[in-house]
Amino acid sequence: MENINYTLDDVLAFDSRFRTTFINSIGGFKTPVLIGTCDKQGHSNLAIFNSLIHIGAMPPLIGFIARPDSVERHTLQNILDTHIFTINHVREEFYKEAHQTSARYAKHESEFEKVGLTPEYQKDCMAPYVKESSIKISADFVERIDLSINGTVMIIGKIRTIHVPTDCVTIDGFVDIEKAGSIAVTGLDSYYSTRSIGRLSYAKPNQPLVPISSVYLE
Amino acid sequence: MENINYTLDDVLAFDSRFRTTFINSIGGFKTPVLIGTCDKQGHSNLAIFNSLIHIGAMPPLIGFIARPDSVERHTLQNILDTHIFTINHVREEFYKEAHQTSARYAKHESEFEKVGLTPEYQKDCMAPYVKESSIKISADFVERIDLSINGTVMIIGKIRTIHVPTDCVTIDGFVDIEKAGSIAVTGLDSYYSTRSIGRLSYAKPNQPLVPISSVYLE
Repeated sequence: MENINYTLDDVLAFDSRFRTTFINSIGGFKTPVLIGTCDKQGHSNLAIFNSLIHIGAMPPLIGFIARPDSVERHTLQNILDTHIFTINHVREEFYKEAHQTSARYAKHESEFEKVGLTPEYQKDCMAPYVKESSIKISADFVERIDLSINGTVMIIGKIRTIHVPTDCVTIDGFVDIEKAGSIAVTGLDSYYSTRSIGRLSYAKPNQPLVPISSVYLE
Repeated sequence: MENINYTLDDVLAFDSRFRTTFINSIGGFKTPVLIGTCDKQGHSNLAIFNSLIHIGAMPPLIGFIARPDSVERHTLQNILDTHIFTINHVREEFYKEAHQTSARYAKHESEFEKVGLTPEYQKDCMAPYVKESSIKISADFVERIDLSINGTVMIIGKIRTIHVPTDCVTIDGFVDIEKAGSIAVTGLDSYYSTRSIGRLSYAKPNQPLVPISSVYLE
C-alpha cells in the first residue's frame, strides 16, 4: 500500500472545508449520539455529537466536546442552565433523522418535531430522551473544562440512569451495543454498521490471549 | 425491545470489574490506536488506547485520555519527557498484537518486540511509528489537562505529520479509514470491522439530505 505524507504545513495550506473533513476523519471511529436537553422554560433541544468521551467508571463519568460558535451552543447553554442532559445512541433506522438535527434551527424550534424523532420524558429527568434509541443515558452536569487552545468546551456529566435492552448485557458487564443496533461514525457525516471481530481476554505478559464469548444475563 | 434501567446507585453497587466493563461499553464505538513513544534514552514504548479525541481542525489538534496509575503511565511519562508521540490506527490483521500491548511489561521491555510489531523510524520523528499501520500520525505535545474529578489526564497534541494510503483520500478531504482497514472498538476489549451505511450532506433546515459518493483523489 502506497502512502502519502502530509506535513503540518500541508494541512495548514488545505482549503478550510477540506481540512475540517480531513482532520475529523483521521480521528477514527466514534459513536454518534443525540444529546437531549431543555431550556429553563422546558423547550426541548436535540443535537447530534460525534465526540462522546469515556472519562471513568468510578464514579461513572462521561463527557463530550462542544463548539460554542456552532449549532451546539443551544445544547451547551441548556446544560449550563439546567444541569441535566440525556445521551442517546443512534440506530441505522434513524441515522438520517439524527444527522438532520445538526441543521441550524432557530432557538425555539424543536429538532424532535423538525426531524421526526420522538421525545420521551421519564420521571427521573427533565431533559428528553429519544424514544427511538435503544441505549439511553441521563447525566448530571458536573464540570466544564474550557480548552483555551481552540475555544472548545469539554462537558463532563455524572451518569444518573442507564437504559439498555435487557438482552444486550453479558454476565461480565459488557453491553453489546452492536446487538442493540448502535452505529459508528467517522468525521462529520460518514456512518457505519459493525461486525464483531471478537472480544479478547485481559492481556498479561507472556500469556496467550483467549477469545471471550458472550453469555448474556437474559 | 424490553429495556432494563440502572440507576447511579445500581452502578455504584456493581462489582468493580463489572462496572468498569459496563461503563466503558456504553461509551460507544471508538478507535483503538497504538501510541508510540520513546524515553530520553531512546527506548521505544507502544501502548493501545481507546480514548482518541478529535479536538479541532484549525490548528489540527488531537488528544487522548491516560490513566496515570495504569500501564499507560509509561506513555504519559515519555510524552512529557520528549514532547513527541505517534498515533497508529489498528487493522484487523494485527488487532491481537495491538491488544497485547496493554499487558504490564517492565519499563525497558519494548512492547514492539514482545508482541511482534515493527517499529518504524522516520526522520521527522524520534518516536516510533508502527510499520503495520496504514494510517499514522505524529504529534507534538502541546497541553496536559488534569481531570481532577477522577485523576485522569488529557494529553493534547498538535499534528505534525499524517501518513495515509494514497487511494483512501476523497476530493473533499474525507479519509476513508474503513478502506484503509482501520477497525473500531467498544469497551476495553471488543473489536469490530465496519460496513459503510453512507455519507450524508451538510444538514440545512427544510432541505433534504443527499448521499455523498466517494470520489478519490487517486
